[in-house]
Amino acid sequence: MFTLRIVSAVVGAPLVLLAAWLGGWLLLGLVAVLLCVAFVELMALMKQPRPPRVLVLAGGVILLAGAYLSEGDYFPGSAVVLFLVLCLASLVLFYPRFSPQACAATVFTTLYPGLLIYLYLIRLLPEGWMWALFTLATTWTFDSVAYLVGKWWGRHQMTPVLSPGKTVEGFCGGVAGSLLAAFVFHLFFAAPAVWVWLVLGGMVAVAAQLGDLASSVIKRFADAKDAGNVIPGHGGVLDRFDSMLLTAPLVYHAVQLFSAGG
Amino acid sequence: MFTLRIVSAVVGAPLVLLAAWLGGWLLLGLVAVLLCVAFVELMALMKQPRPPRVLVLAGGVILLAGAYLSEGDYFPGSAVVLFLVLCLASLVLFYPRFSPQACAATVFTTLYPGLLIYLYLIRLLPEGWMWALFTLATTWTFDSVAYLVGKWWGRHQMTPVLSPGKTVEGFCGGVAGSLLAAFVFHLFFAAPAVWVWLVLGGMVAVAAQLGDLASSVIKRFADAKDAGNVIPGHGGVLDRFDSMLLTAPLVYHAVQLFSAGG
Repeated sequence: MFTLRIVSAVVGAPLVLLAAWLGGWLLLGLVAVLLCVAFVELMALMKQPRPPRVLVLAGGVILLAGAYLSEGDYFPGSAVVLFLVLCLASLVLFYPRFSPQACAATVFTTLYPGLLIYLYLIRLLPEGWMWALFTLATTWTFDSVAYLVGKWWGRHQMTPVLSPGKTVEGFCGGVAGSLLAAFVFHLFFAAPAVWVWLVLGGMVAVAAQLGDLASSVIKRFADAKDAGNVIPGHGGVLDRFDSMLLTAPLVYHAVQLFSAGG
Repeated sequence: MFTLRIVSAVVGAPLVLLAAWLGGWLLLGLVAVLLCVAFVELMALMKQPRPPRVLVLAGGVILLAGAYLSEGDYFPGSAVVLFLVLCLASLVLFYPRFSPQACAATVFTTLYPGLLIYLYLIRLLPEGWMWALFTLATTWTFDSVAYLVGKWWGRHQMTPVLSPGKTVEGFCGGVAGSLLAAFVFHLFFAAPAVWVWLVLGGMVAVAAQLGDLASSVIKRFADAKDAGNVIPGHGGVLDRFDSMLLTAPLVYHAVQLFSAGG
């Protein structure tokens, strides 16, 4: 299992890095594929009431188109509104088969994995490749180091009820890993001061842990261990990218605020 | 009841018009008040699972702040994301008391009435007062004429299962009313050509009807006749502004697209 996990990472990570480096349609395509898989996984977890597949997929298309048209300037709020209106129209058109509760589940099932489009938006920022690489590197370092430290030295459970496998030692290791990764960026890139890199790295670690726990809650409520099994040894897209769903928006908005202020 | 309805309209409509004319903080304040009432009404309708009050109110504050900071350039997508992240964090912090289904209900209960901030965004457009007045006039004309024509001459039910009181005659009357109101705008304002006014008026009528029916679905599922009773003779904010929730975004984006194209 552990070997499988490493093999998957060695094959998968370069693919994601390549798409992030090339950017444009290729990256948008990768985000679209990840989004589709994440939708299928979350729809299965959000049963009772289950969101209709067609509507969630339409939402994905609307969000991707919105991200493309926004040219990286902002998260496409108008796409969110268009999708919300589509859901409200479906309430009327499919009455009484589509309940307001199912409508709410549909909106959530679309918007939550929809945060993945930030990977594409980050790439469109000035020096987007650097920020995309930073997001991937700090998030993955957090995930991997937290996993390994927790596995080898973990003693004190962090969230005994929600996710017994997570330990305080693992979290601290992950934070140290993210900070180290951020410091490496300081050595290679002159632009922001060292403290900016470190603050960002620390914030990414906290966001990564929160993202990981949020998807754990959803899996717990559905009595599922993993969200899927498309990535051998890692589970599903929602298992592997749950941290990124929160770290990507964080980095994007932090960079935007910092650019606007400085 | 009918007299009460008219008295309310004669008192309420000028207040809304005044706030729309003055714009700025006063209009934002009015939207905030309407939003709060709509939240309370929708929370009561979305019981099972009921969205937590604090979170919905926090979402309202985030959306209003986003609208204020956007300066009318776009619907604040980053505010939506911030609110979504807050909901995901609540999943973790309040585990296991806050379920993913309640989380979804919370997101929907906030975003749907949240469309009201378009009233404020419209006012910030170039010639915002004209567009705000147009939105209010065409939507209210549709609502009133559809109600009166349906009451007096309505024979053919439009949605017998969902809302037996609505008739095809009422809808057609409402469309005629909206078109007439749009034509009056053509007489007063030179800017867009007459066909633009009429197309917009027709689209507003359809959106108003859809918005009205969407809130009917939610009330139906909750076995409620009205969403509230704050406006004597009209019901709640969600009863009186349900059409506006769809017409305001429509006018805003139509004007933006039209300005970008022309």
